[in-house]
Amino acid sequence: MEIETDGLMPVTITLAFTPETLLAPSQDAASTDASVLAMESTCAVMIDVLRASSVMTTAGAAGVDRIYTTASVDQALAVAKELRTSVSGQGDGAQGVLLCGERNCERIDGFDHGNSPAEYTSESVSGKQMVMTTSNGTRAIEAVKHCDRLLIASFLNLSSVLQRLADETSILIMCAGTHREISREDVLLGGAIVERLLQSKSASDVVLNDQAMIAHAAWCQAGVSSNAQLADALTHSIGASNLIRLGMAADVRRCAELDSISGVVMRCNESDETCLPVSLDASLDPVSRFKFFS
Amino acid sequence: MEIETDGLMPVTITLAFTPETLLAPSQDAASTDASVLAMESTCAVMIDVLRASSVMTTAGAAGVDRIYTTASVDQALAVAKELRTSVSGQGDGAQGVLLCGERNCERIDGFDHGNSPAEYTSESVSGKQMVMTTSNGTRAIEAVKHCDRLLIASFLNLSSVLQRLADETSILIMCAGTHREISREDVLLGGAIVERLLQSKSASDVVLNDQAMIAHAAWCQAGVSSNAQLADALTHSIGASNLIRLGMAADVRRCAELDSISGVVMRCNESDETCLPVSLDASLDPVSRFKFFS
Repeated sequence: MEIETDGLMPVTITLAFTPETLLAPSQDAASTDASVLAMESTCAVMIDVLRASSVMTTAGAAGVDRIYTTASVDQALAVAKELRTSVSGQGDGAQGVLLCGERNCERIDGFDHGNSPAEYTSESVSGKQMVMTTSNGTRAIEAVKHCDRLLIASFLNLSSVLQRLADETSILIMCAGTHREISREDVLLGGAIVERLLQSKSASDVVLNDQAMIAHAAWCQAGVSSNAQLADALTHSIGASNLIRLGMAADVRRCAELDSISGVVMRCNESDETCLPVSLDASLDPVSRFKFFS
Repeated sequence: MEIETDGLMPVTITLAFTPETLLAPSQDAASTDASVLAMESTCAVMIDVLRASSVMTTAGAAGVDRIYTTASVDQALAVAKELRTSVSGQGDGAQGVLLCGERNCERIDGFDHGNSPAEYTSESVSGKQMVMTTSNGTRAIEAVKHCDRLLIASFLNLSSVLQRLADETSILIMCAGTHREISREDVLLGGAIVERLLQSKSASDVVLNDQAMIAHAAWCQAGVSSNAQLADALTHSIGASNLIRLGMAADVRRCAELDSISGVVMRCNESDETCLPVSLDASLDPVSRFKFFS
């Protein structure tokens, strides 16, 4: 029997400041299973404002064909090798596959690109496959692997992310943080998403966890009404201070260009035949595949 | 050579939403040592609004002689036994030692008191020794054991806590959370402490970590200007919802009686001869000793 809901399906918004702060109420096996089950009907939103999610979104808008993310450098190298030798490859061999990512904010030795959005232009990535590993973003992606759907969110495409969330009733906002520390810039974007969801839905039908309430307050209190104010707000964070110390302040400003991109990078299901198959080496870390949807 | 600081010693305020979110920037042993060293010159503030820190403060103001905290029920029983048989005991034997605390919000079987502030009246605790174990508060106390000084903070005695912090230059605010989850009511009090510290010191001389900034925003955004508003704000949290479900909503209102108590519970150093000696059983968890300072 179908239950008549009169369109009043409650919406659950769970936010985690880092992968570590997403916890089931108790640690026993039964509740872990229940929590995996709950995640299966959930849409996850991964946030690493500085800079993985901003880079993925920029690359997607610049026409990249697919983005493969891995936690380790070794796995990134293995995936790139397989893509480059794949007979069904859509790129042009070695030139069609880009190794991308950072460790300690800097480009990985031997990789094609680092983690600055400015590197990801149409000229450099259009039609290509990206294999990407970053310090924090790829850990956050792994943390929500059981979720049915996974969107990559940045300030660059906030409105597009909200459009994709319009019909979702269980949303998990996963902030990446910085080296396991809670990072304010990710919490601000998480709070901005909560704020827009509350505006678009009847507040009495929305259930927030404590972290979602706190993030929402942090965003509202920031009082951002321009890109310059947003860049200023992002500057006061552990993630930004690491970049500024390394001379990458321009990246912070670029990641604050609110709604400059239309479209969202989303995970491709394994059944998506438009994704290249990758035979995973079980001894290495998992690979996720992403595509830009305009 | 002493350095002339012209009174402009910078103040560092580090806040942790739970013991787990307090992290050194990296995980290697050298930085852990550095972090322990830094803690030694730090004043810690432990927050478990609902309800351990509110109970300790209430009991202190009601004239309790000492509060011993332990993480486990077994250790609480062992400490109480030792205190009751101590020849140098200042209480009146078994009647002078109270076993206090909760598991799953309820009084522990066989204990004298649970974790409701209303139980801690002058009649019930004045002049007595309390041995206390709670689910979250005693874990948070253990997390800051390396700090030179440790204050217990609640909304009940916020102004007194701030007086004690006036001359501190390194402050660690440790929120207990609820079963390892970040709990909004603790974050709100942490933010209130940050707000008052910022008011009392020159803002340019204060260094906040990201969690301190986020907590500060959460408190400011809550817009609390009365006890009723504070109780309402505390109600929207995982800690409060657990209590309300068990019929303990009155405890939430009681813990929102801002500045109703003058004085602070602080840890006694082992060298404090006014504290009863307790010979710790190394196979059990550590014991901390506290005293109320009016």
